[in-house]
Amino acid sequence: MTARTGVALEWRDGPTVTGDHGGLDLAVPYRMEERLWESGGSPGAGRAMPVLTAIGERFGRERPLEGLRIAACLHVTAETAVLMGALKAGGAQIALAASNPLSTQDDVAEALRSYDIAVHARAGVDRATYYRHIHQALDLAPDLVLDDGCDLVNILHTERTDLLGGVSGGCEETTTGIIRLRQMAAEGALRFPMVAVNDTRTKRMFDNRYGTGQSTLDGIMRATNLMLAGRTVIVAGFGYCGRGVAERAKGLGARVIVTEIDPVKALDASLQGYEVRPMESAALVGDLFITVTGNRDVIRAEHLALMRDGAILANAGHFDVEIDVRALEEMAVSLNQGVRPNTDEYVLADGRRLLLLAEGRLVNLTAAEGHPAAVMDMSFSAQALAVAWLAAERLNLAPGVYDVPEDIDVEVARLKLAATGIEIDRLTADQEDYLHSWRTGS
Amino acid sequence: MTARTGVALEWRDGPTVTGDHGGLDLAVPYRMEERLWESGGSPGAGRAMPVLTAIGERFGRERPLEGLRIAACLHVTAETAVLMGALKAGGAQIALAASNPLSTQDDVAEALRSYDIAVHARAGVDRATYYRHIHQALDLAPDLVLDDGCDLVNILHTERTDLLGGVSGGCEETTTGIIRLRQMAAEGALRFPMVAVNDTRTKRMFDNRYGTGQSTLDGIMRATNLMLAGRTVIVAGFGYCGRGVAERAKGLGARVIVTEIDPVKALDASLQGYEVRPMESAALVGDLFITVTGNRDVIRAEHLALMRDGAILANAGHFDVEIDVRALEEMAVSLNQGVRPNTDEYVLADGRRLLLLAEGRLVNLTAAEGHPAAVMDMSFSAQALAVAWLAAERLNLAPGVYDVPEDIDVEVARLKLAATGIEIDRLTADQEDYLHSWRTGS
Amino acid sequence: MTARTGVALEWRDGPTVTGDHGGLDLAVPYRMEERLWESGGSPGAGRAMPVLTAIGERFGRERPLEGLRIAACLHVTAETAVLMGALKAGGAQIALAASNPLSTQDDVAEALRSYDIAVHARAGVDRATYYRHIHQALDLAPDLVLDDGCDLVNILHTERTDLLGGVSGGCEETTTGIIRLRQMAAEGALRFPMVAVNDTRTKRMFDNRYGTGQSTLDGIMRATNLMLAGRTVIVAGFGYCGRGVAERAKGLGARVIVTEIDPVKALDASLQGYEVRPMESAALVGDLFITVTGNRDVIRAEHLALMRDGAILANAGHFDVEIDVRALEEMAVSLNQGVRPNTDEYVLADGRRLLLLAEGRLVNLTAAEGHPAAVMDMSFSAQALAVAWLAAERLNLAPGVYDVPEDIDVEVARLKLAATGIEIDRLTADQEDYLHSWRTGS
Amino acid sequence: MTARTGVALEWRDGPTVTGDHGGLDLAVPYRMEERLWESGGSPGAGRAMPVLTAIGERFGRERPLEGLRIAACLHVTAETAVLMGALKAGGAQIALAASNPLSTQDDVAEALRSYDIAVHARAGVDRATYYRHIHQALDLAPDLVLDDGCDLVNILHTERTDLLGGVSGGCEETTTGIIRLRQMAAEGALRFPMVAVNDTRTKRMFDNRYGTGQSTLDGIMRATNLMLAGRTVIVAGFGYCGRGVAERAKGLGARVIVTEIDPVKALDASLQGYEVRPMESAALVGDLFITVTGNRDVIRAEHLALMRDGAILANAGHFDVEIDVRALEEMAVSLNQGVRPNTDEYVLADGRRLLLLAEGRLVNLTAAEGHPAAVMDMSFSAQALAVAWLAAERLNLAPGVYDVPEDIDVEVARLKLAATGIEIDRLTADQEDYLHSWRTGS
Repeated sequence: MTARTGVALEWRDGPTVTGDHGGLDLAVPYRMEERLWESGGSPGAGRAMPVLTAIGERFGRERPLEGLRIAACLHVTAETAVLMGALKAGGAQIALAASNPLSTQDDVAEALRSYDIAVHARAGVDRATYYRHIHQALDLAPDLVLDDGCDLVNILHTERTDLLGGVSGGCEETTTGIIRLRQMAAEGALRFPMVAVNDTRTKRMFDNRYGTGQSTLDGIMRATNLMLAGRTVIVAGFGYCGRGVAERAKGLGARVIVTEIDPVKALDASLQGYEVRPMESAALVGDLFITVTGNRDVIRAEHLALMRDGAILANAGHFDVEIDVRALEEMAVSLNQGVRPNTDEYVLADGRRLLLLAEGRLVNLTAAEGHPAAVMDMSFSAQALAVAWLAAERLNLAPGVYDVPEDIDVEVARLKLAATGIEIDRLTADQEDYLHSWRTGS
Repeated sequence: MTARTGVALEWRDGPTVTGDHGGLDLAVPYRMEERLWESGGSPGAGRAMPVLTAIGERFGRERPLEGLRIAACLHVTAETAVLMGALKAGGAQIALAASNPLSTQDDVAEALRSYDIAVHARAGVDRATYYRHIHQALDLAPDLVLDDGCDLVNILHTERTDLLGGVSGGCEETTTGIIRLRQMAAEGALRFPMVAVNDTRTKRMFDNRYGTGQSTLDGIMRATNLMLAGRTVIVAGFGYCGRGVAERAKGLGARVIVTEIDPVKALDASLQGYEVRPMESAALVGDLFITVTGNRDVIRAEHLALMRDGAILANAGHFDVEIDVRALEEMAVSLNQGVRPNTDEYVLADGRRLLLLAEGRLVNLTAAEGHPAAVMDMSFSAQALAVAWLAAERLNLAPGVYDVPEDIDVEVARLKLAATGIEIDRLTADQEDYLHSWRTGS
Repeated sequence: MTARTGVALEWRDGPTVTGDHGGLDLAVPYRMEERLWESGGSPGAGRAMPVLTAIGERFGRERPLEGLRIAACLHVTAETAVLMGALKAGGAQIALAASNPLSTQDDVAEALRSYDIAVHARAGVDRATYYRHIHQALDLAPDLVLDDGCDLVNILHTERTDLLGGVSGGCEETTTGIIRLRQMAAEGALRFPMVAVNDTRTKRMFDNRYGTGQSTLDGIMRATNLMLAGRTVIVAGFGYCGRGVAERAKGLGARVIVTEIDPVKALDASLQGYEVRPMESAALVGDLFITVTGNRDVIRAEHLALMRDGAILANAGHFDVEIDVRALEEMAVSLNQGVRPNTDEYVLADGRRLLLLAEGRLVNLTAAEGHPAAVMDMSFSAQALAVAWLAAERLNLAPGVYDVPEDIDVEVARLKLAATGIEIDRLTADQEDYLHSWRTGS
Repeated sequence: MTARTGVALEWRDGPTVTGDHGGLDLAVPYRMEERLWESGGSPGAGRAMPVLTAIGERFGRERPLEGLRIAACLHVTAETAVLMGALKAGGAQIALAASNPLSTQDDVAEALRSYDIAVHARAGVDRATYYRHIHQALDLAPDLVLDDGCDLVNILHTERTDLLGGVSGGCEETTTGIIRLRQMAAEGALRFPMVAVNDTRTKRMFDNRYGTGQSTLDGIMRATNLMLAGRTVIVAGFGYCGRGVAERAKGLGARVIVTEIDPVKALDASLQGYEVRPMESAALVGDLFITVTGNRDVIRAEHLALMRDGAILANAGHFDVEIDVRALEEMAVSLNQGVRPNTDEYVLADGRRLLLLAEGRLVNLTAAEGHPAAVMDMSFSAQALAVAWLAAERLNLAPGVYDVPEDIDVEVARLKLAATGIEIDRLTADQEDYLHSWRTGS
């Protein structure tokens, strides 16, 4: 056995793969996947993104994107590289710009270039360069576009209207971007079909419920080394993320109390065995508070005033507005920063000490590693299949915002089960008939 | 203290109530609710149907149905009586026919009559009488109708078209009825708006997930006295009901294996920690099989051939087609009926003995008591509020099938929380603004 | 296929068995086990008492009791019959008297007699006959004795001292009996070794934790048809039984609060995620109270005074002293008996209604069916193996009270795993060495 | 509000405390507890070691160690400093040597010296110096001793027998030390009473079950960023630690399979709903394997040969012998070290990749932070109370090894509940009588 340290130096230079991939042109996704080990990928069952890898292999056989030009504006990371590899394996010509210069990994960009993908991105560039990069990607004169925040689509509709005629569809993966697109569609301004790939059933499971659930508690444990068994944990919000957080806190032995403003969600929490209280009551008994509501000021001065000495405050909601940090600062007489990693201690006038994690920002991203690659695998797989669907259907689709077709969601789940080695039943012909007759009511 | 046995003899003769109800005209619902104790109602937190009772009280104050005539075709049971009482408290004049002569409780009918509700129903009547009763209820010339299976609405549209002009809306509470109504609507035949009250979020929680989950295991325990801890339980189907059944089996200490045909549901089951297998693999290891799929022949000869000696078969799906009982009968060399209540033992040629519960019919209805009154409380509360909504909106609604408005669902949940003594948070003005600005994207 | 109803009429007349038992003399236990179907046995994985049946089979091969006379004083039930069959298969000559005339099943007694076991028991006999039966059993001049409450052993030491010289050991299965035996031993009065078979690790698991846990909730559901999801359940006592009850209530969706007087148990409950409160605080919020402490007056007037309208009171502790029923009666202004099976409603002066289940007696025995046969299987299996151990070791044992040897407990667990089809690992020779060296500290 | 970074620079110079401590001489424990923030302490409910702090406060009032000299040989860490502070507050004069020079924190040593505790320890000293330090501590001529591994006690009995006459008792906190002491006692060599403080019910809860359970999964998440939901986790061993690990893995959404060699533990795992298999069967399906048996070679070449590509191997047992790492090295054709922190990838000849965490050493110590301070709080609290008990009882105790008295365990639990704000019930006089009469059998 020969030992070597670090795989990164090696994978980049080799020409191709691939033995068990059957000689397909899958050099990039395969090797990119290897790369994930370094950048936070999760070493799951053999491969970090098995579903997207399987899709890449199929694309290599079926070439659904043959001859299409795709301009993409995405975070330039290892996970994105696997997506780019799958699209290229499907026959596409690709130009990629960064959706945020801060997240660009220059070595990933370099690797992609060596596999003939045009990457217009560099870590830390200024605003002007950022926009120039998008224009450079658009210079490809794309048939399809991939966007993350709607900047590329916006430029197309304002500064590059000459290219609009050639674009027959695209995907957008953020909630914010979808909102902008829907407004454009409502005003009649959107000129081609866009698929809202940010929300599928499989992504919601992996991302919101199970992904955020685990990574939030992971982040809290890393920041505090707190033993959760026997603690009283207040989870503010019982949406998909909130119930994921509540399940994990309960699974680690905590007594969980839920706060809500929606009666239906509150009732569901109660039926699942959680105690439900208003925050002003929960504030009195919590050891640890986790906000995950999507709203602001969920924990306010009036609640901070009631908390126990040593209470811990963490946020798992998208924006850092859920805990009113300004109120905490105003109530404190001193601040001990960094008493633990990502942990600041605020000392109040009455001597109570409140501990704020990650300055009230997303604790799962700041104190842990955010989503495992398994989560991105689901999102990007839906995206790859949505691109193939667009390639096939684009001439039949009116401009507008489309949900990911149900079939694609089912297909992603099917591939994920296959990657996990889980088999399920198939309907017999009699069962198909029975269901059909029942649903049609005949 | 004076002791008396049985409450039924007493409640019927008294004229009114009611101290803590503030002297409202709530004689009927209050007393009807008492009546539930005898007929299978669940002695919950003080009252068996607190939400519907609260709605009845509010109706008594607000009289939203003042002057309206309502013809109803429903099971004539104690729970229905509470609904009738609430509607009457709201100001309606009511005529009630039975939706099934087998379920009619004659003493309930009699009691309702004594409170000035016209009941056209008697247990065990023949088919001609059943239809005559519906006609008699329709003779009221209703403004609104309540239906359970669409028979009354059907007669209105075929034999009593003279009355159609006066009917401005109605509710239908079964899936089967909704299918018929949608066909009528699709053909342009439906002449007034109908609300599909069979499916709300709160009802789905109480009925499908938590109600069926518990009552299924309850029925199995009553039938078998089986200790579930350590048993391997196969749950076929992971819809709302299936996950409820799986949760309860797990909660009783069983190792649960899920079978599915839908990849997305299978994946969800897996992420919740359940083992997922195809039935032909699960058949080898199960101690207890529970079907809850909505499909037929989920357990077939090929599966029965693989099962262990002593395996138990139960169905919690709506129809008795999920276990192929005919195949079981053909494979058996002898049958020992009633080895336990609702338990038949089939002896196969190789000596294995398979135990079929409740002849493959709904085990929660047959071997236990079906839904607790708390479940009917949610359904009938949504129905009462839907009637009030129809009363207010009926002149603005085109013919067609309508979902229960979201607001009604939230209101039912709100009232249920109040009845349970659970308080939740309210949005501050700043939070309302924040959510609004976010959702509108401005 | 031929159908027949009821197995009881048939099994009694046949001479013997039985194919898959290899022709061993196991007629009695095999057929007795069949009999269990009627009398509350649980139709588990093929056989209701598989471990005891396997021991009976082994006894048939190894004849460890060859030539020994055994006098037993036990409940004359189907489960006991299986034990008797196993001992007889082992070569023993047996005389059986009833330990309680109320529990005697005359048809079981008759069946045992037809298989050459002398049964001195009849349902409902008077006190004098009861004692005469014990004397008749002792007339066998036993080598070994089995007792349930110490009556037989007591008579031996007082009225039948002539037989003492022949008795070389015995088993006692109740806590009460063990206390009497220990007093006798302390006073030097006990003349032979007695094994305390009432407490082994396997029995404690099956009986206290999992058995009582399930049957208590089962009894409550049968009595009330209460939907447990979302209810607040107070479990008083967190011993083996209490934690079993708490686990099952939690597993059915309830929010569980534990009360305790022992700080270590309270801390353990807390670390398992339960809320822990004193009863006077829990009384304010509980929907359902379950006492399982082994102490008296756990729920007293001062607690009843605080409870919500509709609160339900159940006892799962051995004696009916845990809920102060007298206090409840004194506080009530009226009583509605039997509002549901095993449910009485006490109406207090302020209008609140409290529901007492099973008159405060063991709710799992009264409202459900007590322990499944699987529990008795563990107890009686330990007893059968203890008898065989006594047969081998009796001449080496001084008079005194002995615990069941650890090996027997392990053997019962091993047989139970085998009956369930569960395989486990075996130590390699290296591992044996490693453990041995570690434990000896060398 | 003024901000400052790091509390360490400040706390050391101040003279005393302490307002809310009532002016007691608790400078050291109070300040030491502050110090924990830096060195891995967990910021729980206000204080990292609240129980030991409370004991220190009581010792300050009651002075149970007034005039006694204590020689201790322990890890010189912040947690130990809190223990030293408590003993000093109780009136003891203390000399402390390190039980391991690698774990000595020099700043803690320095701080303790400034509070008049004689510390003979320095990080990284050689063997000769290490023993000289123990001799220097013994020069105090102690009345009582605290040991961690039995070195100090051993030197007392061999090289410093002159001091033996003055020593009236001590505590030993490791399993290894206890084994040595029992051997000494068996040979009649032990000259004074020693309390085995390594095993109490409260410590077992906090340390083995809940502490190890959480920290093991924490370590695995930090090493792999693996999403546990939906993974198959094999837990080898179902002792206290094993069940803690299994509970946490299940609580994070994994499907857990248990392997065991003890039938009773295997049966218990099964009754708790876990699947139980032998390792050679589990090896085929596991995504993650965690050994926690106390034995060697639990995962061997024959198991590694069966595992899936990508399987992860972690050990939570005390020694690094549970996974046969040598076999893994021999089977591998290459090794990629550090593909993630604490994660090495072994590539086998057939292309499968197995991931070994922390080189097979304790994953909770290596990849996470070991026990939270809450665990040490329980252990050291039992130790402090054991010292006080020895101080009171030492003249009545014969030489030998003693368990921690049950009362001390209860007292630690009681203080922990108080620190957590949990109240429990107290027995009434009637209840005391009832229990007493029952237990005595009168």
